[in-house]
Amino acid sequence: MSINTKSLDSIKSLAANDLNSMDEVIKERLFTKTDLIKAIANHIITSGGKRLRPILVILSCKLFNYQGQRHINLAAVVEFIHTATLLHDDVVDHSYLRRGYPTANKNWDNKSSILVGDFLFSQAFMLIAEDGDLNILEILSKASAIIAEGEVKQLSSISNLHITLQEYLEIITAKTAQLFAASCQTGAIIADVNQEIALSMHEFGLNLGIAFQIIDDILDYQADQMVIGKNIGDDFKEGKVTLPIILAYDASNQEEKEFWVRTINKLDQQNGDFSHALEIINKYNIMEECLAMANHFASKAKDNIAIVSESDIKNLLIDILNFSVDRNL
Amino acid sequence: MSINTKSLDSIKSLAANDLNSMDEVIKERLFTKTDLIKAIANHIITSGGKRLRPILVILSCKLFNYQGQRHINLAAVVEFIHTATLLHDDVVDHSYLRRGYPTANKNWDNKSSILVGDFLFSQAFMLIAEDGDLNILEILSKASAIIAEGEVKQLSSISNLHITLQEYLEIITAKTAQLFAASCQTGAIIADVNQEIALSMHEFGLNLGIAFQIIDDILDYQADQMVIGKNIGDDFKEGKVTLPIILAYDASNQEEKEFWVRTINKLDQQNGDFSHALEIINKYNIMEECLAMANHFASKAKDNIAIVSESDIKNLLIDILNFSVDRNL
Repeated sequence: MSINTKSLDSIKSLAANDLNSMDEVIKERLFTKTDLIKAIANHIITSGGKRLRPILVILSCKLFNYQGQRHINLAAVVEFIHTATLLHDDVVDHSYLRRGYPTANKNWDNKSSILVGDFLFSQAFMLIAEDGDLNILEILSKASAIIAEGEVKQLSSISNLHITLQEYLEIITAKTAQLFAASCQTGAIIADVNQEIALSMHEFGLNLGIAFQIIDDILDYQADQMVIGKNIGDDFKEGKVTLPIILAYDASNQEEKEFWVRTINKLDQQNGDFSHALEIINKYNIMEECLAMANHFASKAKDNIAIVSESDIKNLLIDILNFSVDRNL
Repeated sequence: MSINTKSLDSIKSLAANDLNSMDEVIKERLFTKTDLIKAIANHIITSGGKRLRPILVILSCKLFNYQGQRHINLAAVVEFIHTATLLHDDVVDHSYLRRGYPTANKNWDNKSSILVGDFLFSQAFMLIAEDGDLNILEILSKASAIIAEGEVKQLSSISNLHITLQEYLEIITAKTAQLFAASCQTGAIIADVNQEIALSMHEFGLNLGIAFQIIDDILDYQADQMVIGKNIGDDFKEGKVTLPIILAYDASNQEEKEFWVRTINKLDQQNGDFSHALEIINKYNIMEECLAMANHFASKAKDNIAIVSESDIKNLLIDILNFSVDRNL
């Protein structure tokens, strides 16, 4: 992994003007509305998410010397879709800490999270209508449908220790990587690239997104929550079967398999179980295996943009890739 | 009110071919997906909703002699948007009986309702993308945003006895009438009518939707749940301040006002409170007042389509209007 990886903050500062313009669009769309929407909008903006998806829209059009302004509204679109998904996820996951701040459903409640999510989602499609490109509408509506279906699949696979690696990859591709892919493709399309390059950018985003989500799933088993602003052990508590569990279960002996069945499949958990889970994971070097897989997808992503000429912007995209597999590990 | 109002069933039978084609589209879009989506899709189709919104799309294009097929997919779009809203509403309202069947969140759970709602919503926008008309996209994305905002406003006004008649009308216009309006406008637009007629059809749908929702709110205070397939008293239990409460509170004496404050504002309810609420409502002839208001909007709707030439289809639309204010009262 790159040691000279620029931190995401420095990448963000390079796209700062466009991100600020996007924030203005977000404010404008949300701040004239009812108090509850204003409050949640404010929460979204000030809680300072990574803004990875809008950054990908911005860099993916700049990569091809796009000079227009469409990327500002379209960056807001992907941030709206992402935030709507987060709001609904928070209800589904009963997750009360995200980005180090209490999640919306703790501060307000589940009802508001559902309805404001719907509002953001609709606003995204209003912005797409104003942008007026049916190609973009197709890409983003399809991505949204795949995300929702991925979330349903993930929900159906809770506590299922027999989920295959393939099924896991399908789920994270759907629920996370599709929006990364659509963001990159959207940026490329407004810069008027040919079909081949647009699809390469889609693939770049897809592989980046898979690598990103694998790392996210790893972090739930090792990062310090003060650093990443997320509770660790949430996936374990909920019986969410992610890569570390799939590989650990596979490597486990009979007694350890029974431990996973009790804690994950039957959700019968006691104090100390999470620590024991970490012990098994360490015993079989599962983290290294997960990391290798994340790096595999990061490497595929690098291949995907090999056809793009070298440039500062291309280097920034590679920095994001490196950051995604390198954060807090 | 018309005594010769055709029942909705006979109206439905006249649009039966198109509704069956729409059901095929719905099945095709949902039945190949994960089991949970299949199950909920099946539930939606077999639970036999009124299908009012798709019927409005179908009749509104036939009204202008539309000969194409776009209305089939667009009818599915409004049904998807409506069903997504219902699924999310059921979670928000904790309502366990809708259309006489257990709601999705009882059979499955809140999580599935949220995610499948999102999936249906995305599918709606995929179908709009395939239809390829930015004008339709604008109308339906805007309607969706207004619906979500109306739901947020309604949520914010729970237990608020000081909500004005104007605010109530704004909420039901947003959460119900907008999709009726968008359905009628969509039908008219694909039939290539001029701007003036398209807007008249929008207004027709809007006033029809307001009348429809006023009656829906009345029914919660009087219908037999075996007849309309809905629990009565739900709005009362949740402290939802609808037209009967607004008018009853306004008419109430001091003691009765205190009753409303305790039951609706403080949500401190005991056995017999709902019966007492009905007594107050009857004492001041509130139902007649509500009905008069529904008829006022129905009459505006009739004016809105006065510019359209007489035809069998126009009569069907008027039948729907009559049905909407006349059902089970």
